[in-house]
Amino acid sequence: MRKVYLDHAATTPVHPKVLEAMLPYFSEKFGNPSNLHDVGREAKNAIEEAREKTAALIGAKSEEIYFTSSGAESNNFALKGLAQANSQKGNHIIVSQIEHFSVLHPAKSLEKSGFTVTYIETDKTGMVDPADVEKAITGDTSLVSIMHANNEIGTIQPIEEIGKITKEKGVLFHTDAVASVGWVPVDVRTLGVDAMSFSGHQFYGPKGAAALFVRKGVRIKPQIEGGIQEEGRRAGTENVPAIVGLGKAAELAAAEIPHRMKYVSSLRDRLQKGLVEKIDHIVINGHPSRRLPNNLNISMWYVEGESMLLFLNMEGVSVSSGSACTSRSLKASHVLVCIGTDAAVANGTLLMTLGMGNTVEDVDYVIEKLPPIVQRLREMSPLYEDMIKKEKVG
Amino acid sequence: MRKVYLDHAATTPVHPKVLEAMLPYFSEKFGNPSNLHDVGREAKNAIEEAREKTAALIGAKSEEIYFTSSGAESNNFALKGLAQANSQKGNHIIVSQIEHFSVLHPAKSLEKSGFTVTYIETDKTGMVDPADVEKAITGDTSLVSIMHANNEIGTIQPIEEIGKITKEKGVLFHTDAVASVGWVPVDVRTLGVDAMSFSGHQFYGPKGAAALFVRKGVRIKPQIEGGIQEEGRRAGTENVPAIVGLGKAAELAAAEIPHRMKYVSSLRDRLQKGLVEKIDHIVINGHPSRRLPNNLNISMWYVEGESMLLFLNMEGVSVSSGSACTSRSLKASHVLVCIGTDAAVANGTLLMTLGMGNTVEDVDYVIEKLPPIVQRLREMSPLYEDMIKKEKVG
Repeated sequence: MRKVYLDHAATTPVHPKVLEAMLPYFSEKFGNPSNLHDVGREAKNAIEEAREKTAALIGAKSEEIYFTSSGAESNNFALKGLAQANSQKGNHIIVSQIEHFSVLHPAKSLEKSGFTVTYIETDKTGMVDPADVEKAITGDTSLVSIMHANNEIGTIQPIEEIGKITKEKGVLFHTDAVASVGWVPVDVRTLGVDAMSFSGHQFYGPKGAAALFVRKGVRIKPQIEGGIQEEGRRAGTENVPAIVGLGKAAELAAAEIPHRMKYVSSLRDRLQKGLVEKIDHIVINGHPSRRLPNNLNISMWYVEGESMLLFLNMEGVSVSSGSACTSRSLKASHVLVCIGTDAAVANGTLLMTLGMGNTVEDVDYVIEKLPPIVQRLREMSPLYEDMIKKEKVG
Repeated sequence: MRKVYLDHAATTPVHPKVLEAMLPYFSEKFGNPSNLHDVGREAKNAIEEAREKTAALIGAKSEEIYFTSSGAESNNFALKGLAQANSQKGNHIIVSQIEHFSVLHPAKSLEKSGFTVTYIETDKTGMVDPADVEKAITGDTSLVSIMHANNEIGTIQPIEEIGKITKEKGVLFHTDAVASVGWVPVDVRTLGVDAMSFSGHQFYGPKGAAALFVRKGVRIKPQIEGGIQEEGRRAGTENVPAIVGLGKAAELAAAEIPHRMKYVSSLRDRLQKGLVEKIDHIVINGHPSRRLPNNLNISMWYVEGESMLLFLNMEGVSVSSGSACTSRSLKASHVLVCIGTDAAVANGTLLMTLGMGNTVEDVDYVIEKLPPIVQRLREMSPLYEDMIKKEKVG
């Protein structure tokens, strides 16, 4: 049976060149970068080289990169660390309603500890209006956090415009770019952000290595305390092999982002067209054009996402029904609810994210397999039967 | 030139069997454990198997193991998470003065947010007196955190006795066992602890995977928020290969701890004897018998630790002058200062920690190389010259 992995937003395989770069650092060059002897220095040099490559991918200086263990840790670090270290400026922060939970939950925690939070609405395509951010900023605002691209519906926010506003107002600006770095060009200077989260396993790097960019001169309170690592901002022995892998993945991405965008968007467009042609009562979520090139998020009426996912799985196809970080919770996606999707249709959602390992044949296989699954499941739905009857009568 | 690595307390190489177990999980079985499809399930099964093996090493149930990215993260999680989630019991916590900074710094942070902290003294061997802990407990105490073994001087604390006291008083008890797990038997039920930190790269597992044991029923506040991973207690895509590696390292350790203890302690004893015979004005730090089997921490008068370290490095020998987590700070060890070591002699300290890859020949090489280095450095010290003159006169 053909195996088709269409869940690259959940995680990507480690690129063979990335694994090759990592391998010496497990058992051979295994030193602790904090040590002053040669074994330690070799590890220290390796992570500093990785820091340069990682910085280069996003147009940052290497001393502005802090390695963490995951995108979620980077987001927690940014929200709590920036809010706590800059509370002399005020205790009001602004986020969008469709942020990842690793931004929203820290925001909730900050609310419990005395901060106030404004949750900005988006339009039906998931787009934040920069004017709404501007209106929400008060004299008490210290931090704005708006994601670069949404991990579920792929909508790419007007970060550059928001960055101009925050700069003018003297407010710190963090963006969660976990879903976008490695897939589209992301440059921290162009965007005008003060902090940015991104994660290696989202673009062919290993799990366990992510980063937070913090602009030079910006204060941030460490969340993992008690060591000199990462300039005292994040304690804990560095995950040397994973950091080396993140550096290599960044180097590969920097070289081939235009190619990646072209390749995955052509597959994505073919998949979208094929499914829309064959399945009725289908909705494409997210922005029609300002969207991640590998993202396809579709909602279908009268059918349940988990069931489609499991039937596709039996055909060798791996997709998601939403964010991996909440997939086992079986609730409707907060992103779809926030952009105004009816709960009934939100439950019939599939998130398909393409990658460089996918082929035209993979896409055609899914276009062949999904429509009969949808049809079979709908035939078991009394609501669908009613609708068909009504349409015939009408 | 012979290469002798005597810095196993800083980090250990990944065991070949551990790396072998990890390898399939980078590029082949690369799924995100949160996904419901087969690719995700395969990863989920792998981390649950690792959780069982990790739990078995310390006598815990697998549902009591929460994976983190480092010992420092586990300690931060324990201190802040337990104090914050159990503040209805009171806002007083107790730690020893010689804890790792990843316990002491969170304790300081908690002080800033309204907790009070008692810092227990130790005797000159670095031993905490359980009676001192008992005396320090008040009606307001919610948490005691005393390390299992000290990472610098190797002293093993009377955790079991302290556990009886905390249980009787109804106070939570965390122990930082990062330095001991994998080298000596550690059983959470025997010790009577409610939480325990330990880290894979300390015993031939990979960097990037550590754990916090939290006894079933104990409340702890998540520190990395916003995901369903680790039962909602620690967000972020799991570092699957590293977790699999930690599980394998735990399995290997469980099978050979008695052998490890015997092997490394015989080498350590030979090293200690050899150096004490050849170097005058030398002090062995830590407890003479209740000490980690691979630990040798020596202070020498009239000589500077960093210089010895660098000269040994030129001979191919890797040692530390203290904790890796502070080595670049070039300050005298807080542990040595707390056990009452004179600052002058504390600066002349070397930490040598043995491992399973070391041989008698390695040890004899160090016994041959270190004494002339010490002699040469002392000859440059005016204090040493004075002392020699006085001894001759005396």
